[in-house]
Amino acid sequence: MIGSTVKKLLLENEADFLISAENVATLNEINSLEHALLVLTKIGYSRVPVLNKEEQLVGLVSLSQVVDQMFGMEDFEPQNLSGKKVSDVMDTNMSPAQLPIDLEKTLHLLVDNNFIPVVDENNQFMGIITRKEILKAVNHLAHELETEYNVMMK
Amino acid sequence: MIGSTVKKLLLENEADFLISAENVATLNEINSLEHALLVLTKIGYSRVPVLNKEEQLVGLVSLSQVVDQMFGMEDFEPQNLSGKKVSDVMDTNMSPAQLPIDLEKTLHLLVDNNFIPVVDENNQFMGIITRKEILKAVNHLAHELETEYNVMMK
Repeated sequence: MIGSTVKKLLLENEADFLISAENVATLNEINSLEHALLVLTKIGYSRVPVLNKEEQLVGLVSLSQVVDQMFGMEDFEPQNLSGKKVSDVMDTNMSPAQLPIDLEKTLHLLVDNNFIPVVDENNQFMGIITRKEILKAVNHLAHELETEYNVMMK
Repeated sequence: MIGSTVKKLLLENEADFLISAENVATLNEINSLEHALLVLTKIGYSRVPVLNKEEQLVGLVSLSQVVDQMFGMEDFEPQNLSGKKVSDVMDTNMSPAQLPIDLEKTLHLLVDNNFIPVVDENNQFMGIITRKEILKAVNHLAHELETEYNVMMK
């Protein structure tokens, strides 16, 4: 369990760490892999959430998953991308969070994931929680804890 | 400044967070971009350190930097990779750390970087410090602090 002071300091500057949907680059499940390749290369994120036309979260797709489709059995075959869609290569095995976030679970999930997608009760995409935002809060905690509190071994 | 108890708890399980060079995927500056594309796609890391033949750190290269070379002015031109080397596209603007790491500086750098390369005094590549390892230590800190210590507001 995470203690109350640690939780308070981690959450002090940002109530829920959410980067909201309108500020997150996403792809649609029906986008072509050529489009996905362009978007993933140009935005500089190696993995983005995939939505359906109802703006529900349906997966995550990475640049390496798209590029991997261009490697044939023996050779580099960029024409392999033709006719394939994001839904053909995306990961559907993910652990979306809901608001309010469970800080303990989120900290655990971020050990192995660069971001956690957040959805509402209808699976509508709300945004993402990133390692970057959590690490900002960890910096705050590390600097403030012993400035603001006396810490003594039990 | 980071307090002594926070530092102790963060460093308790791993003295320096280093993933040593032999366990880190790297590219050589003279590798072709075709080779870099294959390696970056297959290992699943979006960015790796680049070494010279003396195993010194000379840059970082990402999958998106390599793929970006395949986009011509108007079209997708995979043949653009031919004849280009990793040294032609890599970032040389980086902030390598030295051992023993400065925890405060490292925590700050990891807000904007997924890993920090570590070198010795001769710029020999020693390994990397990752957000993943730091987040493991943050989980330990978050769980143990108020179990092991009494924390009272000053």
